[in-house]
Amino acid sequence: MDRAEALRRIGDERVARLATIGSDGPHLVPVVFAFDGGRVVTAVDQKPKRTRDLQRLKNIVADPRVSLLADRYDDDWSRLWWVRVDGTARIVRTGAEFVEVLALLADKYQQYRSDPPRGPAIVIEVGRVAWWSAEPPRV
Amino acid sequence: MDRAEALRRIGDERVARLATIGSDGPHLVPVVFAFDGGRVVTAVDQKPKRTRDLQRLKNIVADPRVSLLADRYDDDWSRLWWVRVDGTARIVRTGAEFVEVLALLADKYQQYRSDPPRGPAIVIEVGRVAWWSAEPPRV
Repeated sequence: MDRAEALRRIGDERVARLATIGSDGPHLVPVVFAFDGGRVVTAVDQKPKRTRDLQRLKNIVADPRVSLLADRYDDDWSRLWWVRVDGTARIVRTGAEFVEVLALLADKYQQYRSDPPRGPAIVIEVGRVAWWSAEPPRV
Repeated sequence: MDRAEALRRIGDERVARLATIGSDGPHLVPVVFAFDGGRVVTAVDQKPKRTRDLQRLKNIVADPRVSLLADRYDDDWSRLWWVRVDGTARIVRTGAEFVEVLALLADKYQQYRSDPPRGPAIVIEVGRVAWWSAEPPRV
């Protein structure tokens, strides 16, 4: 896997896990998301939430450093891989960028076409990209 | 889902994601793991590693607060769920507890029976358990 392939794989995944830093320690939630080549975007939607779930927003305001991981598990461990993106997140509530985020998400998830997320959105500027694959690189 | 069901589900999962806090921000890796009712255990094994992958050990030494997430994705969003365990981690390299960890892991993953992880092991004392399910609770 090279960087281009790593980014292609993360873009194709339907779910990833978002880690933020909270005052109590690391915080982790699964997210649906889209990747446009430079930014990973996700949004708070209408899936039922526990209050504490919005901890991710509070954490980003206090510390914008986030990490996002997509991985493939298989009981055949020669098929395992993961891709991780570290970046800087910000909260977007309105405006042109919010509309852009909704369009990216609706393009990927049909659920969002009939019921767009009310937000806020989280926009992550991708910094370091790391990846790993159990498969030996193709020659 | 109640706490018992949440713990049952996380115990049954084949993979989870482990978040630690590093000096550069949150760190995230997928892990195979076992849960014995009180502790989540995982170990550094012989899967090929990038050097930086052992960042998780360095991070735990500096800050033992970790978060572990298992989740189920489905394009039918009424089937989504996740379970998260926050806890305190420590590194175990030798001794009776290390042997116990290997036994727990070998019991769950046949791969570890022929090729036990050399370690070190990470032992997480489970603190807070959080969960979410899109399914309405059964009455």
